[in-house]
Amino acid sequence: MTRQQLFEKIKQKESFLCVGLDSDIKKIPKHLLSAADPIFEFNKQIINATHKYAVAYKPNTAFYEAQGSKGWDSLQKTLEYIPKDIFTIADAKRADIGNTSSMYARAFFENMNFDSVTVAPYMGSDSVKPFLEFKRKWVIILAATSNPGGLDFQDVIVSDDGEKLYERVIRTSKEWGNANNTMYVVGATRPEALIGIRRIIPDHFLLIPGVGAQGGDLNAVCRYGMNKQCGLLINSSRGIIYSDSSESFASSAGKVAHKIQIEMAEILQRL
Amino acid sequence: MTRQQLFEKIKQKESFLCVGLDSDIKKIPKHLLSAADPIFEFNKQIINATHKYAVAYKPNTAFYEAQGSKGWDSLQKTLEYIPKDIFTIADAKRADIGNTSSMYARAFFENMNFDSVTVAPYMGSDSVKPFLEFKRKWVIILAATSNPGGLDFQDVIVSDDGEKLYERVIRTSKEWGNANNTMYVVGATRPEALIGIRRIIPDHFLLIPGVGAQGGDLNAVCRYGMNKQCGLLINSSRGIIYSDSSESFASSAGKVAHKIQIEMAEILQRL
Repeated sequence: MTRQQLFEKIKQKESFLCVGLDSDIKKIPKHLLSAADPIFEFNKQIINATHKYAVAYKPNTAFYEAQGSKGWDSLQKTLEYIPKDIFTIADAKRADIGNTSSMYARAFFENMNFDSVTVAPYMGSDSVKPFLEFKRKWVIILAATSNPGGLDFQDVIVSDDGEKLYERVIRTSKEWGNANNTMYVVGATRPEALIGIRRIIPDHFLLIPGVGAQGGDLNAVCRYGMNKQCGLLINSSRGIIYSDSSESFASSAGKVAHKIQIEMAEILQRL
Repeated sequence: MTRQQLFEKIKQKESFLCVGLDSDIKKIPKHLLSAADPIFEFNKQIINATHKYAVAYKPNTAFYEAQGSKGWDSLQKTLEYIPKDIFTIADAKRADIGNTSSMYARAFFENMNFDSVTVAPYMGSDSVKPFLEFKRKWVIILAATSNPGGLDFQDVIVSDDGEKLYERVIRTSKEWGNANNTMYVVGATRPEALIGIRRIIPDHFLLIPGVGAQGGDLNAVCRYGMNKQCGLLINSSRGIIYSDSSESFASSAGKVAHKIQIEMAEILQRL
């Protein structure tokens, strides 16, 4: 999916919502546990109920790996079930030396056909570039993450003019690719960081987790982070998929997603 | 395995060699491709030929993920095949927000029973601490990696007295755990970095990749990095497992591992 196609989809659906499929066998409704593949069954019903309101789905690989090889099958089936016009993100936070990163890229882009994968920047250029070699695929680099520990190293000052590490990461890595194959993760829990980030990368899409369970504010994020092509994918995981643990979990998830989509439609009017 | 037990094993085997099982279906000898599980068959023969000379095995998860759920089965079988007195490292370079890191920890420590897992530090304390909650398990934090891109961010100066990011990472993260549950990755390609690192963490074990295919020098690494309990696990992957692509690949691998072990036995005399 190209950047322009993603923007068209956002306008058409009046949404820039990404639904995070952090599907934990210990948290899904109990009545699903008798299904042949409970995690896939859960995801299927969540996707059925939310796909009208979402432009992206983001399974976090940790929740599938925790189920071993069975979990990888659930992930593969989930990916195949997601409608083809919806952007898919493997939230895997991978990266390794060059030849190994190539293997990860092959795993997520060739074997599993994800549109994008999240990548950790600590190991530098040759750990990220193998992911950029795949046509029509996207790399989403961790910049300023939403968790408390994100401040430990990402906010360290790395130059005399007060540049922070996450700004250096963005400024350096934007040269490895471009706004058509690279996005950045910026946590919704620190919207003010977006002002400086938009000075460095006005055009790139940002993946923004942390709205909902982690406490981020949608309006603040959009005020500081939105660009002419929207430029934002706002992720909500637990706030949507675990909004209800009863048999009506899916319709509840749909309602929460719809409510967010309505807020987003209003915000998109500003463009 | 405790630090003391690891040291006893090193003395007993006169080796601190870790064999990296970066087993790539495209690189293993062709005659294995007809086996039911070629990757496991390859690993089994490599383990049979090298286990006398090694104190640790380190499968890199990328090579297994690239085979999908089948690959995860190969990884599980490999782990079960490794003799129980040998330290096992899931070279996974994971880390995520707290609740997600807990899932990764569960995947590698509970479901798969690895002794240790490599972890990326970029997301900070709450991304690493969940791995430290498992008793008798180890976290191996990326510090100064062996790849060229390792210099992009890890060597950035983060304080007026010239501290580098990887030194800050070590100094901060050593407070999250201790020398009995935390190790660090330091590439063999920059042995001089070990001098400063040993000032910060005299007692911790270091996992040193980059000897062999990546060009690191064993003697230089030991001169600067060894401590009273050895304190080093030196990894070689491609240099051992792909030393020969014929039907005698395993005995070749054993010979290379033995040669390294003999060098290590000599070095250990210095302790």
